[in-house]
Amino acid sequence: MGPHPAVAAIRLAVRRVLHDILTEHTSTPDTPGTADAPGPRERPASPLVLVACSGGADSMALASALAFEAPRLGIRAGGVTVDHGLQPGSDLRAEEVVLRLRELGLDPVESAAVRVGRGHGPEAAARDARYAALDAAAVRHGAAAVLLGHTRDDQAETVLLGLARGSGIRSLSGMAAVSGAGGRYRRPFLQLDRQTARKACMVQSLPVWDDPHNADPAYTRSRLRHEGLPALEKALGKGVVEALARTAQLSRDDADALDTWAGRAEASVRDAAGGLQCAKLYALPSAVRRRILRRAAIAAGAPAGSLFARHIEEVDRLITGWRGQGAINLPGKVVARRQGGRLVIRQG
Amino acid sequence: MGPHPAVAAIRLAVRRVLHDILTEHTSTPDTPGTADAPGPRERPASPLVLVACSGGADSMALASALAFEAPRLGIRAGGVTVDHGLQPGSDLRAEEVVLRLRELGLDPVESAAVRVGRGHGPEAAARDARYAALDAAAVRHGAAAVLLGHTRDDQAETVLLGLARGSGIRSLSGMAAVSGAGGRYRRPFLQLDRQTARKACMVQSLPVWDDPHNADPAYTRSRLRHEGLPALEKALGKGVVEALARTAQLSRDDADALDTWAGRAEASVRDAAGGLQCAKLYALPSAVRRRILRRAAIAAGAPAGSLFARHIEEVDRLITGWRGQGAINLPGKVVARRQGGRLVIRQG
Repeated sequence: MGPHPAVAAIRLAVRRVLHDILTEHTSTPDTPGTADAPGPRERPASPLVLVACSGGADSMALASALAFEAPRLGIRAGGVTVDHGLQPGSDLRAEEVVLRLRELGLDPVESAAVRVGRGHGPEAAARDARYAALDAAAVRHGAAAVLLGHTRDDQAETVLLGLARGSGIRSLSGMAAVSGAGGRYRRPFLQLDRQTARKACMVQSLPVWDDPHNADPAYTRSRLRHEGLPALEKALGKGVVEALARTAQLSRDDADALDTWAGRAEASVRDAAGGLQCAKLYALPSAVRRRILRRAAIAAGAPAGSLFARHIEEVDRLITGWRGQGAINLPGKVVARRQGGRLVIRQG
Repeated sequence: MGPHPAVAAIRLAVRRVLHDILTEHTSTPDTPGTADAPGPRERPASPLVLVACSGGADSMALASALAFEAPRLGIRAGGVTVDHGLQPGSDLRAEEVVLRLRELGLDPVESAAVRVGRGHGPEAAARDARYAALDAAAVRHGAAAVLLGHTRDDQAETVLLGLARGSGIRSLSGMAAVSGAGGRYRRPFLQLDRQTARKACMVQSLPVWDDPHNADPAYTRSRLRHEGLPALEKALGKGVVEALARTAQLSRDDADALDTWAGRAEASVRDAAGGLQCAKLYALPSAVRRRILRRAAIAAGAPAGSLFARHIEEVDRLITGWRGQGAINLPGKVVARRQGGRLVIRQG
């Protein structure tokens, strides 16, 4: 008798990703300088894959599947849990997660304590601190990849959060299956629903921890999870989560293609001195033109995160609705103005 | 003292659209065959603009603004109300709307009774019947345009309905400001919120009719309006409607640009016999390749409305994940198969 369908599903998802990692690992030797050197190649050492685990159902399911699949593929499996220090006793919680990961047979396993800054909102600050700790752990252990437990439900929430920004299809593209420096982060569960991960923990008798933050209505994502998405499902039907996840993938591909186009077109609209020629910009589709304007503003020093669609629209009107208007002020003290048929975007 | 801000807002929105219509009308004479002929041109007759009015707040506000602005621009203003015959007494209701439009000074004004078919859902059937009646009225009266009262709130709902399909950014692009044959339909209120339209009716003492269908939870759009969107606003903040409307515009521009790219690329991937060359398709960004595959499937006879993202993904795997798989069956008895480095998509 095979494993429970939920367990089979989480293992299959992890196996596919481990296969990818293995293929990449064996085709790119650890010492890139010798890649083109003649002579016999040494077989690379068995790669290490880490799982980032909070102790919640999604990442515990992920850890269990990694522990099961990795040895069968000659991969070493380890784990990291991040102690955000945001709740009393979070250090004990982290130690408990470390024990559970060890019980699954993972090695090395470690807990990384971080200090969450304030800056731009509590969720973003916690995320920044978490990824910095995971990056450091990956480098320290020479890990080939770090697996993250984000599910299709997380993806749907991310798409809705992006939708609320109203800043275009890039922000609808959610989380990538592969991201980070050198494709370090992998999300095997991005097409798997949260219910399956939870079920897999249950049938494997894995104790899971429900982060109280996930149910705290002070957090936008939590409100979305417990109120927004259920109401949307009630109105639109049960397929909403799947539709949002599919939207993420399609939007990502579309945004990538348009970025490619904008990259190529940018070269063709610049004159010999590097100035942006308004007439040539005008002839481009607005989707491509706006991307070029955005790139130019960022290159001039405007912070990408503060540059909104309405800023770019205003700059765009220097091209499409020219009636002698003055300079446009952009974030980061960047100024855009039209001068003699050229668009000049620069700081100060 | 000027008009109430809500009245000023609806009038400005209509004035802008009437200006566009006027510009197009005077630059394209009624008899296109004579456009390049020498000699003096006759001044075109005063154009007629119709408003489609249900008697609800949005379209009554639109009608009032059209009645005010049109004479000032030398435009004739008329109105049409469609009797869908779905409720007892709908004919009397339509007659009442006709009277109100006449009271506003519109002329011609007419009521068009339609039979709503069954087919693909009650909302779609009512919409099809409505546009057919509006098309007929526009042609009969020789109208230059038909104004529709869709607001930014309607647009936000349309984006969410598209999102629920999960079929990509074209379905996120909502309603166009200009659509239909020759740009017949115009939506002056697409950037105006429903509350402003309602307020404008109130301060002008215009009686409005609340369609009971709009509050009937049997309709998806009604559930979205009364439950889905408010819950989303509660989770994500008040700017959601505006963000969704902005997403519509950005998605539309992006989808248009990618369609343009796909149209150009399609020619370059076909061989002399018109066959689609797999190697050349493979080299394209997936967003462009999938659009070419979709166009090819539709050209082969697959009905656009039944062709989902998952169909195109399966065909795409004949290019990107080729392992000798068999033919792929698509809606409309269209079959896609790979033969000798060519993709063959045809009926039967």
